[in-house]
Amino acid sequence: MDVEQFRKAGYQAIDRICDYYYSLQNRPVTSNVEPGYLRQHIPSTPPEKGEDFQVIADDYQKFIVPGLTHWQHPSFFAYYPTACTFEGMIADLYASSTCNPGFNWTSSPACTELEAITMDWACQLLGLSPDFMNSSGVGGGAIQNTASDSALIAVVAARALYQRDHPGVKMEDLVIYTTTQTHSLGLKAGLVLGLTVRALDVKAEDRFALRGETLRLAWQEDEERGKKPFILIATVGTTSSGAIDNLPEIQQIVRNHPSLWIHVDAAWAGSALSCPEYRERCHLSTINELAHSFCTNFHKWGLVNFDLSTLWVRDRKHLTEALDVTPPFLRTTHGDAGTVIDYRNWHLALGRRFRSLKLWFVLRSFGAEGFRRYIRKTISLNQQFADFIAESDLLSLVTPPSLALSVFRLEPKPKSPDKPLLSLESLNNLNKLFYGRISARNDILLTQTVLNGVHCIRFAVGAARTEASHIKQACELLHKEAELTLEAWEHTTLEDAK
Amino acid sequence: MDVEQFRKAGYQAIDRICDYYYSLQNRPVTSNVEPGYLRQHIPSTPPEKGEDFQVIADDYQKFIVPGLTHWQHPSFFAYYPTACTFEGMIADLYASSTCNPGFNWTSSPACTELEAITMDWACQLLGLSPDFMNSSGVGGGAIQNTASDSALIAVVAARALYQRDHPGVKMEDLVIYTTTQTHSLGLKAGLVLGLTVRALDVKAEDRFALRGETLRLAWQEDEERGKKPFILIATVGTTSSGAIDNLPEIQQIVRNHPSLWIHVDAAWAGSALSCPEYRERCHLSTINELAHSFCTNFHKWGLVNFDLSTLWVRDRKHLTEALDVTPPFLRTTHGDAGTVIDYRNWHLALGRRFRSLKLWFVLRSFGAEGFRRYIRKTISLNQQFADFIAESDLLSLVTPPSLALSVFRLEPKPKSPDKPLLSLESLNNLNKLFYGRISARNDILLTQTVLNGVHCIRFAVGAARTEASHIKQACELLHKEAELTLEAWEHTTLEDAK
Repeated sequence: MDVEQFRKAGYQAIDRICDYYYSLQNRPVTSNVEPGYLRQHIPSTPPEKGEDFQVIADDYQKFIVPGLTHWQHPSFFAYYPTACTFEGMIADLYASSTCNPGFNWTSSPACTELEAITMDWACQLLGLSPDFMNSSGVGGGAIQNTASDSALIAVVAARALYQRDHPGVKMEDLVIYTTTQTHSLGLKAGLVLGLTVRALDVKAEDRFALRGETLRLAWQEDEERGKKPFILIATVGTTSSGAIDNLPEIQQIVRNHPSLWIHVDAAWAGSALSCPEYRERCHLSTINELAHSFCTNFHKWGLVNFDLSTLWVRDRKHLTEALDVTPPFLRTTHGDAGTVIDYRNWHLALGRRFRSLKLWFVLRSFGAEGFRRYIRKTISLNQQFADFIAESDLLSLVTPPSLALSVFRLEPKPKSPDKPLLSLESLNNLNKLFYGRISARNDILLTQTVLNGVHCIRFAVGAARTEASHIKQACELLHKEAELTLEAWEHTTLEDAK
Repeated sequence: MDVEQFRKAGYQAIDRICDYYYSLQNRPVTSNVEPGYLRQHIPSTPPEKGEDFQVIADDYQKFIVPGLTHWQHPSFFAYYPTACTFEGMIADLYASSTCNPGFNWTSSPACTELEAITMDWACQLLGLSPDFMNSSGVGGGAIQNTASDSALIAVVAARALYQRDHPGVKMEDLVIYTTTQTHSLGLKAGLVLGLTVRALDVKAEDRFALRGETLRLAWQEDEERGKKPFILIATVGTTSSGAIDNLPEIQQIVRNHPSLWIHVDAAWAGSALSCPEYRERCHLSTINELAHSFCTNFHKWGLVNFDLSTLWVRDRKHLTEALDVTPPFLRTTHGDAGTVIDYRNWHLALGRRFRSLKLWFVLRSFGAEGFRRYIRKTISLNQQFADFIAESDLLSLVTPPSLALSVFRLEPKPKSPDKPLLSLESLNNLNKLFYGRISARNDILLTQTVLNGVHCIRFAVGAARTEASHIKQACELLHKEAELTLEAWEHTTLEDAK
């Protein structure tokens, strides 16, 4: 493809993306393809001769688009949002066009410098301490692929620091603390590193947040048996229910255990810190005093296209001392002099894409004001949903709504005081049936979870195009499905009783 | 930005990328910015109000482009190529526009299915054994970020397997084998995982390839002292000099050590396997019999835009058993039934971008034929360069050229038989001076390396727009710089002698 062919194909791609967004609302949210569908349309071997690009572009529309789950659909309430923006797409396009892996300053100065600056912007947007800014020269931030990578890096840095301060400690004795509600990133870091993960219990009455006393008791127990907890992955906004670990209580406990690295994973909820009114709820001031590292994913609830996970550390040398590898072919004058950041020592890989460009484009185009407006809108839409659930006689919230996430279940209010409530097991079965019905639909997408044995359904607001009308539609649809589930359930129960 | 504003901004971005490629050849390869340049142009805080996108797009041209190193420039011979293509850009744009992290089949079926199919295409293109194909149901391939990630994953899978087969083995006793020429990815995997890395010696007379006997002796030594080597990261095409480890000899040795996982890193050179005439030199048949895992980066010498590292394993369950984490909110009917691939268990993170799209676009648009044409062209351009060096009376090859990479140094042929040759130390100093002169230029970019104590310079061909004229230009320029370096050197030496 030469330059003029690219111009033509590029214009067409832009036009087709416009068509996609115009038609998005009228598409189903999910695809109805069956496993293996694509092998029926695509040859099993690569073509020997090059093909015309128009055919390829058309095949994307014909075979790929129908197999997509539309995460940008206004009725997508599953997993977590990946609210992408047109600004982000254009930045991704520019980044792809220069294709320069900025692993050190020299390999492409603008990549390193823009990352250092925009990470400082994001730090300020969220109200994080200036200690975390690159301009501090001590702390700093770098863009990672995902929150899993960020957590893994934090654990590696914490382990290296702990091993340095405790020579001779055995890997087998090291323990990573998470809670039972921590994202799978905690368990995965343990698997990757071959380290023990201890998931601390949390309770429904604490809204699934880790309490200080639980940490204290676990610590005492582990100390007695010679185990060495060296990091706690605390969460602000868990995936399952948006739980926020009790960081002020944790702070009291770790005063006596300064060797415990505190990594705060706010992969999803971190964007809410842009709004001053949510900072106290998210324990921002404790984060600023306590956290060794902090992560949020702007590619989730932060309007930046996947992937852009931001990781800040209070002391950059804990990263570089853990990860620095500088072979001769990567040595540069500026790197040797220490006058520049060489980001390759701040992450797992060597090469890295030019991702700060999309953070820059989005933060400038929206401004802090526009970013907060989006966050507030999604939280208010979720409140609208939570109000509906609270008023429903069929559905109930399992835990209070957290920011832009609600967790609910089908739990009919007893018709008369003498009619007994359903057992937990029956309620769980009822909700499996309920979720089965919802997930069979293709005009809405929600995901399920289990909270301390309770089967429930998550409703995560955040797609950039979701409006009040979509929430209303979702409420009506869920109410209807709840009624139909109960009908089917009562029928089955009656059948069983016969 | 609404849809119509995106159309306008998108067209403009396409046009500006066209302008960029038209002007590329006339630009300097490197930037002349100084560390910290960008902070002078960009405010230190994010804007409160949103800005007009035209201003943002213009600032990209004004402040970012001048700070880029142009990896696509035809006179870029540094590091390794990242030969990106217009097809790849359009695919990246589409991928960014749907923004669906395909961590399991359900989260976006097309993403998983296209990855499974295109990885099989790439497997066939390179002549890898059908054992590695996803369609085998046993082996399979997945796209990773970089070769560092691929190697890290291979080490994790190998460690998990070894620990399972050797219960009670201590982490402190585990050893990763690399060579002194292995890319920093080996050392980094060791740092990340906290495991010992033993870099085996290689010799110039073996063209820096690992020999079987070296491996045998190391193994014997480690066995005697109770150490447990569990993986060898072998390289086909090292970064420094393109060395190809002697896999047939290694195969003889590991026959007696079946617990040693062999990961073959062909990050750069793997693309050459597309051409039958290079398969023997790259030990393809041994790879097909021996390797537990194999990696090459299509984003290096494979015409696909960064990042696209392909990792194949002979047995997929070694990945999934090492990395599987399935919390309730990720459970799906198809996943539970095992009828689909859930790629999240094949890599480090949870979320993943839709990268197979660019592999698909590129392989279709070029065809296997076009892909091989590009590989052959770059190898022949490097041969042209190597011929020039061989004929030069000032420059000499440090080791025979490998595929599209030459390593050379300034080493003037003695003017008369009685005039002594320079010592290694003097030659190294001379070459530091030589490289200093070359790296001060902005119309060409090469990188240096050190091969067993010998300072030398790498010449890596592969930018998609490099033609014979650019090689000729580079030869002339290097010859001129060599002359000037010698003049300056003789002047200094004379001064010293005074």
